[in-house]
Amino acid sequence: MANKTKKPIYPFEDWVIRETQFSIDTNYRNETIFTLANGYIGMRGTFEERYSGPKNTSFNGTYINGFYEIHDIVYPEGGYGFAKIGQTMLNVADSKIIKLYVDGEEFDLLQGKILFYERVLDMKKGFVERKVKWESPTGKILEVKIKRIVSLNRQHLAAISFTMQPVNFTGKIRFVSAIDGNVSNINDSEDVRVGSNLKGKVLKTIDKSVEGLKGWIVQKTQKSNFSYACAIDNVLVADSKYEVSNSLEEDGVKVIVDLEAEKGTSYTLNKFISYYTSKDFDENKLVALALEEIEKAKNDGFETIEKEQEEFLNSFWKDADVIIEGDKALQQGIRFNEFHLLQSVGRDGKTNIAAKGLTGEGYEGHYFWDSDIYIMPFFLYTKPEIAKALVMYRYNLLDAARSRAKELGHKGALYPWRTIDGPECSAYFPAGTAQYHINADIVYALKRYVEATNDVDFLYDYGCEILFETARFWEDLGAYIPLKGNKFCINCVTGPDEYTALVDNNAYTNYMAKMNLEYAYDIANKMKKEVPQKYQKVASKLNLKDEEIVAWKKAADNMYLPYSKELDIIPQDDSFLYKERITVDEIPEDQFPLLLHWHYLNIYRYQICKQPDVLLLMFLQREKFTKDELKKNYDYYEPITTHDSSLSPAIFSILANEIGYTDKAYKYFMMTARMDLDDYNDNVKDGIHAASMAGTWSAVVNGFGGMRVYTNELHFEPRLPKEWNLLSFNVRYKGRKINVKLTKENVVFALLEGEPIEIYYFDKKILLKKGENKVESLKN
Amino acid sequence: MANKTKKPIYPFEDWVIRETQFSIDTNYRNETIFTLANGYIGMRGTFEERYSGPKNTSFNGTYINGFYEIHDIVYPEGGYGFAKIGQTMLNVADSKIIKLYVDGEEFDLLQGKILFYERVLDMKKGFVERKVKWESPTGKILEVKIKRIVSLNRQHLAAISFTMQPVNFTGKIRFVSAIDGNVSNINDSEDVRVGSNLKGKVLKTIDKSVEGLKGWIVQKTQKSNFSYACAIDNVLVADSKYEVSNSLEEDGVKVIVDLEAEKGTSYTLNKFISYYTSKDFDENKLVALALEEIEKAKNDGFETIEKEQEEFLNSFWKDADVIIEGDKALQQGIRFNEFHLLQSVGRDGKTNIAAKGLTGEGYEGHYFWDSDIYIMPFFLYTKPEIAKALVMYRYNLLDAARSRAKELGHKGALYPWRTIDGPECSAYFPAGTAQYHINADIVYALKRYVEATNDVDFLYDYGCEILFETARFWEDLGAYIPLKGNKFCINCVTGPDEYTALVDNNAYTNYMAKMNLEYAYDIANKMKKEVPQKYQKVASKLNLKDEEIVAWKKAADNMYLPYSKELDIIPQDDSFLYKERITVDEIPEDQFPLLLHWHYLNIYRYQICKQPDVLLLMFLQREKFTKDELKKNYDYYEPITTHDSSLSPAIFSILANEIGYTDKAYKYFMMTARMDLDDYNDNVKDGIHAASMAGTWSAVVNGFGGMRVYTNELHFEPRLPKEWNLLSFNVRYKGRKINVKLTKENVVFALLEGEPIEIYYFDKKILLKKGENKVESLKN
Repeated sequence: MANKTKKPIYPFEDWVIRETQFSIDTNYRNETIFTLANGYIGMRGTFEERYSGPKNTSFNGTYINGFYEIHDIVYPEGGYGFAKIGQTMLNVADSKIIKLYVDGEEFDLLQGKILFYERVLDMKKGFVERKVKWESPTGKILEVKIKRIVSLNRQHLAAISFTMQPVNFTGKIRFVSAIDGNVSNINDSEDVRVGSNLKGKVLKTIDKSVEGLKGWIVQKTQKSNFSYACAIDNVLVADSKYEVSNSLEEDGVKVIVDLEAEKGTSYTLNKFISYYTSKDFDENKLVALALEEIEKAKNDGFETIEKEQEEFLNSFWKDADVIIEGDKALQQGIRFNEFHLLQSVGRDGKTNIAAKGLTGEGYEGHYFWDSDIYIMPFFLYTKPEIAKALVMYRYNLLDAARSRAKELGHKGALYPWRTIDGPECSAYFPAGTAQYHINADIVYALKRYVEATNDVDFLYDYGCEILFETARFWEDLGAYIPLKGNKFCINCVTGPDEYTALVDNNAYTNYMAKMNLEYAYDIANKMKKEVPQKYQKVASKLNLKDEEIVAWKKAADNMYLPYSKELDIIPQDDSFLYKERITVDEIPEDQFPLLLHWHYLNIYRYQICKQPDVLLLMFLQREKFTKDELKKNYDYYEPITTHDSSLSPAIFSILANEIGYTDKAYKYFMMTARMDLDDYNDNVKDGIHAASMAGTWSAVVNGFGGMRVYTNELHFEPRLPKEWNLLSFNVRYKGRKINVKLTKENVVFALLEGEPIEIYYFDKKILLKKGENKVESLKN
Repeated sequence: MANKTKKPIYPFEDWVIRETQFSIDTNYRNETIFTLANGYIGMRGTFEERYSGPKNTSFNGTYINGFYEIHDIVYPEGGYGFAKIGQTMLNVADSKIIKLYVDGEEFDLLQGKILFYERVLDMKKGFVERKVKWESPTGKILEVKIKRIVSLNRQHLAAISFTMQPVNFTGKIRFVSAIDGNVSNINDSEDVRVGSNLKGKVLKTIDKSVEGLKGWIVQKTQKSNFSYACAIDNVLVADSKYEVSNSLEEDGVKVIVDLEAEKGTSYTLNKFISYYTSKDFDENKLVALALEEIEKAKNDGFETIEKEQEEFLNSFWKDADVIIEGDKALQQGIRFNEFHLLQSVGRDGKTNIAAKGLTGEGYEGHYFWDSDIYIMPFFLYTKPEIAKALVMYRYNLLDAARSRAKELGHKGALYPWRTIDGPECSAYFPAGTAQYHINADIVYALKRYVEATNDVDFLYDYGCEILFETARFWEDLGAYIPLKGNKFCINCVTGPDEYTALVDNNAYTNYMAKMNLEYAYDIANKMKKEVPQKYQKVASKLNLKDEEIVAWKKAADNMYLPYSKELDIIPQDDSFLYKERITVDEIPEDQFPLLLHWHYLNIYRYQICKQPDVLLLMFLQREKFTKDELKKNYDYYEPITTHDSSLSPAIFSILANEIGYTDKAYKYFMMTARMDLDDYNDNVKDGIHAASMAGTWSAVVNGFGGMRVYTNELHFEPRLPKEWNLLSFNVRYKGRKINVKLTKENVVFALLEGEPIEIYYFDKKILLKKGENKVESLKN
């Protein structure tokens, strides 16, 4: 992976992704890039008029975060406790359809001639707009402008404004605005990272109606027993008479608007769309809710929706924007990444952020540890209320996690490696359930959340349950091993690096479990003292005994923390250093990613990593390790890391920065910053890489910005790459908002909101006060 | 498992298994016990007239060794190099059907009244005979005697003699002799040890015919593209006129014989059955071959088939019989086991011995390492020509093993963990492909075969290819690991004990691989010197370089052989002793077998064994370890071994004997000797446990008989259990046949065939000559 380079695809523009030419070859990819979503509804960038090109050059996907069908997971040779029921995020009814006919000729980019084409994703205003000048096969020329919004304010709403203007003719035009529920998921791919296990059409239409310009359908899943309603309403904005007819289809509705169009005049159809599901609402009220939503939107008007959208994004960018001067490609790349993160994240405490957001079906729409470790920090330090929703999501999964622990014979709670709403859905346990570290990852995110927000109420009312149940689990999972000096060992686990599986004392896992146990011990004692009633409540709910809390401390204090005297590094696990070492340079380029070309047995046999494991640990628990330790471990692990995981380069970039490997820091950052925008791995068509996008933000803020979060301390050790003139970003922390601005010479810290706060610039304490810029000279 | 006891089911008789009562409750089990087979055809002990009892109380199975259908192995989350195509031994047409009607009433044990019932398996004569006195619902009483033979001489032949005699009536009787090809495999079980992955009916009838008393069908598989013919002929032995009619069924044929039967007179229908398959013969000649086979049998007559069968068995028992005086249950048990081994073993070099012989469908009729390590010795030291066929089977798999090694990126050959005719069919690689030790197990069997027979021609013409290709594999698989003092380590493997998987330096594997490498080095050099032309031939075929041979020696000399200083034992692998130790006593009884009640992650996390691993190694390479080492390791591993594998108790019995744990030796022997006959694990209905049966023989000969085979040396350290008066068995070794007879006081060695030979009685050398009994006093 490390040696690939990719040409930029889109022109470098600060706030815009622009497609200037329509092509079958790039259509599938661009459907992902131009996806609009609001954390709840996701609509791939497929065309309103529908794409008529060849198979495998498009996939028409519409998703509702967390709305899934279940299926049996069938193993050719199964085992006790293997995950039995899979969950797959469903492709739901396509509601954005607006077909256009001109004197009976269908507007279709694959017919006739394209005289002008442009599509723009505006990240400041939050819409996608397509402008097309098109000549029909019989020579009729028209201009079309289509603006689509998936409302960030109104989670159940999307809207489209479709304008057409005859250029060289006067004639009959027809709009057909429809819902099409005859949809199914991708199921012809063998790559688990792309398709799903759902075969055929899952959704059954159980109700539908169309009247005038308005219509709706209700569909139901076959097994998960969920239903949803999708409703549309249409408004014709035109000074002319028009006729409306409509039809009920087997799995959908059609609204047909016919009118006479005059040359040079514009005709606009505004369409309002809403989705409601029985996961969140009473099944019987779904239609009414959806109709109410679009009624309100219609009354407010499309412009209001547009305005709200821009305001929402204004507020977002005010907190989250990262300004890079000196490299327009990166400026664009990081904004694109942040924009897609915002689009992908569930904000309701019941959903999270899928591996491919709401842009595709890879990994079945499941949520992984990525959310907690990679994505969480971005929201935590920019929009902490979203971070809270992500932690709340984990709280809402706790019962399922308790059941899973019990099923496996353990105490406490064990979070699923992958899931939508609770049960373990991983069908390959060595790189699934064995990744127990997910428990500590969730607690790590919780701990950071509480530190960065001081939201102890959340901790005492909800978070502590996660904390205590996971601590219980660790204490039960590990054991004091005589031949290891009676140290507390955690055996038979898989760490973050899935290229080594089922090992003993994975360093990442043990350090993180120790953190989990210590934090549980500390918070239990703190609660006893500070909020005894709340403590009593949770202790009684969990049947928590004092001896258990003591046992957590004992396990933490005696945790076995791997260290190799011979190499003066932290071994990834007990066996890692005793495997044959093979560097990435020794492996032919065509063998990557290894998991598609090597049997797991061979991958596991080598010292070869998919992604950082020890190094990730060092980043997450930075205060526990010296710079010298960091460098030694970096030097050891870097040559054997393939970056076959898109989570990998960002961490390397961050740490290379700190060590002073400036060129490497930049190289790794470049690998991650525009990974999706430049379609680095030729797989963006299948969806974005959400965690990697968040990694980019970390690579800037933690890497170049040099931010480190120690327990209750905010540190900065910034370095501006020589390629840049300026880097500026904001961090929300303990109710403050801090701006960090790097120029060629200086770093300027400014407190934009909140009470004075002390931060660290390298070893120097700096007290920030509102209105007082603190200027420090850059050290590199 | 260790604490279970079972009541004996059948009366203790030396040569006979007798069922004295028919019952629905025991029917399924007895179908296995009364299975007849000849290593090629297997017929479960289902009734000729067909059983009409409830579902799940019977399974009507007929098998042809090695005749299989293929199916895709589909993984919910697959990986590179996972086994893709499964093979399943097919249930083929039921040809033993002879229905009987008396004045229209059907002979059916579930109707009317059973006045007398007896079924006998005669292990000396090789038949099953059933005698029934039955009263029909309307009061007609008849006597029925049915004798069935599956010919051990004629692999393609089975025969049935069905006699009926009216007791209290004269009337019309009808025999309906049929072939029924409407069959399918068991596919409703979730237990991989029972059912198969073949769903529905696989075999399609492509040809059929019936004329007079003769009929046949040809059926074809859907995917493996095999066909087979099954032909029958019938002879009525009666002094009365009869009428014949017949019919062609969709998947079979029926021959109907009608006659008037007189009270007190016997009427016999003899039926001859033959199977031929396109795996071995030209597809177009199958019918002709089958018809020829039954024609010859008919001409020879049923009595001739009977006589031949007895002669065959005479010869078998002369070599293989083990005489135990003082315990009739054991005497019967061991004969039952030997008889079933003979019935199950493929003798054509193209088939082997399935985990459940030809008695059931568990493990899909696959062959495992059991054949090479557990079953091989029984045949090697009693009927070495059968052992040769088993090694030849492995030779015939070599091309497939080469392909598999290549697929996984390795040199040489990698044998499949489970297969019928070559490809890896294991769908859970941590307890499948990871068990690389199969390669060395096969070489171990080869080496023992060559030592015990001096069949160097076989070694030089065939065996050496297996040897060199597996040595190549090991040299490629392992690596010299710096932190292990540059020792040659074999990482990421699973040893025989599947309760620990994907470990480094499994002791069993490393020692066995060392043996494999050394033997390859030795034989290569020996061949160069003694048979240079043959060496040249094989070296050129294999493109074998001298450097490779040197590399084998280097790897063997530097092989890492695990040893724990702290505990003075051999650790099962690098990580084993660092896991939490849990003894079998600490685990509730209802948790066994663990693999059905614990997630693999938990099983792997403990020091807990399914079966011996280090101890098996010590038995196989006995000369490499001292008695003291043996005892220390036994004491360490015994308490943590669950014996969840039926392969386990025999090895413990053998080693307990040597250590002097007399009671334990006997206890473990009792667990294995009548495991199937007493239906120890309530699963005999699904088929016998072939390897465990062979383990019984080893427990007698190697355990109480104390036989140890060192390289080219035969040692005996016999101990007679206090419960017994006499133990006598024969051993074939290097062309000799040696009888060993233990009484309360003495052991008597007698050379029955061959040139004089030196053997060892403890440390004493004894020269055996024909006609001279050597009497030694027993040491225990």
